[in-house]
Amino acid sequence: MEQTLSHTLSLLERTPASLDALLRGLPPEWTSQNEGDNSWSAYDVVGHFIHGERTDWMPRARMILKYGETQTFVPFDRFAQSRESQGKSLAQLLDEFSRLRAENLAELRAMNLQSEDFARRGRHPALGAVTMSQLLAAWVVHDLTHLHQISRILSHQYREAVGPWTKFLGVLQCAGHSAP
Amino acid sequence: MEQTLSHTLSLLERTPASLDALLRGLPPEWTSQNEGDNSWSAYDVVGHFIHGERTDWMPRARMILKYGETQTFVPFDRFAQSRESQGKSLAQLLDEFSRLRAENLAELRAMNLQSEDFARRGRHPALGAVTMSQLLAAWVVHDLTHLHQISRILSHQYREAVGPWTKFLGVLQCAGHSAP
Repeated sequence: MEQTLSHTLSLLERTPASLDALLRGLPPEWTSQNEGDNSWSAYDVVGHFIHGERTDWMPRARMILKYGETQTFVPFDRFAQSRESQGKSLAQLLDEFSRLRAENLAELRAMNLQSEDFARRGRHPALGAVTMSQLLAAWVVHDLTHLHQISRILSHQYREAVGPWTKFLGVLQCAGHSAP
Repeated sequence: MEQTLSHTLSLLERTPASLDALLRGLPPEWTSQNEGDNSWSAYDVVGHFIHGERTDWMPRARMILKYGETQTFVPFDRFAQSRESQGKSLAQLLDEFSRLRAENLAELRAMNLQSEDFARRGRHPALGAVTMSQLLAAWVVHDLTHLHQISRILSHQYREAVGPWTKFLGVLQCAGHSAP
């Protein structure tokens, strides 16, 4: 499929409502459990989405336009949500994500990016030179990575309960975790 | 997490709306593409959900109550959707899934299953003896398997576009496919 700004926006604008429909009102036994050890719960993942809206995608898009490769992006804090979500209900986090995403997409549309802008480069602290186009595609696939993760976290809670069905249920075989 | 009918219902009743929020109105470039070869598109997966509502989960629950292990479940046709979805729009399929799921969950509630019912056994054509409890848990994880799959199918469309971000995006490393 060809990458276009319109395709990118169409996916990015649907994520908050999809997450909301899946998670809002779901008993906390589902949303506060993780996959063991220091893994994340669905609640943690929503906090991570919020942190990305505040500090990752659009701030980096702005940096590419303003500084190109001369300034390195601020490293993304993958554990910020444990601090920032404190005291908030899942419903509050879902509202916050939805609001921030809408604001960010309004800003992205207002940037009115032209074809030459998609080839502009910025500097990622770990990956080196990256283009605007790659940043926007990564934003989309980051959304999908965490929908994918949430479906796996929830499945994990019924891992034993499915008994012999395990082998027919692909999500229980998933090892598609993001690199730390 | 303890398996309860209430936990099971709370997840099963949210899947149609979550899928709807993600897929309805998304450009067909996203929803009609697959992961190559004979893999499924998001459109195909919604058809598969519908076929499951019609022929798999509740028909099997009824068989367990009625026949126990004396009759084997009808094998599930994993390719029925290519025939049954023909000529239907994705929006029609999403409506149909939502309606069938609501009907099935109303029937499940009306069954008024008691604790001894969850231990009742049926006979699966490939897995042998399975309990009502396992069937209901598998229904939930089947939903999540296909949400997981849809996030992977959509991600695949931007696999090249993300460039060096690939390694940070777990969904692109997923090999959690269901057994054929």
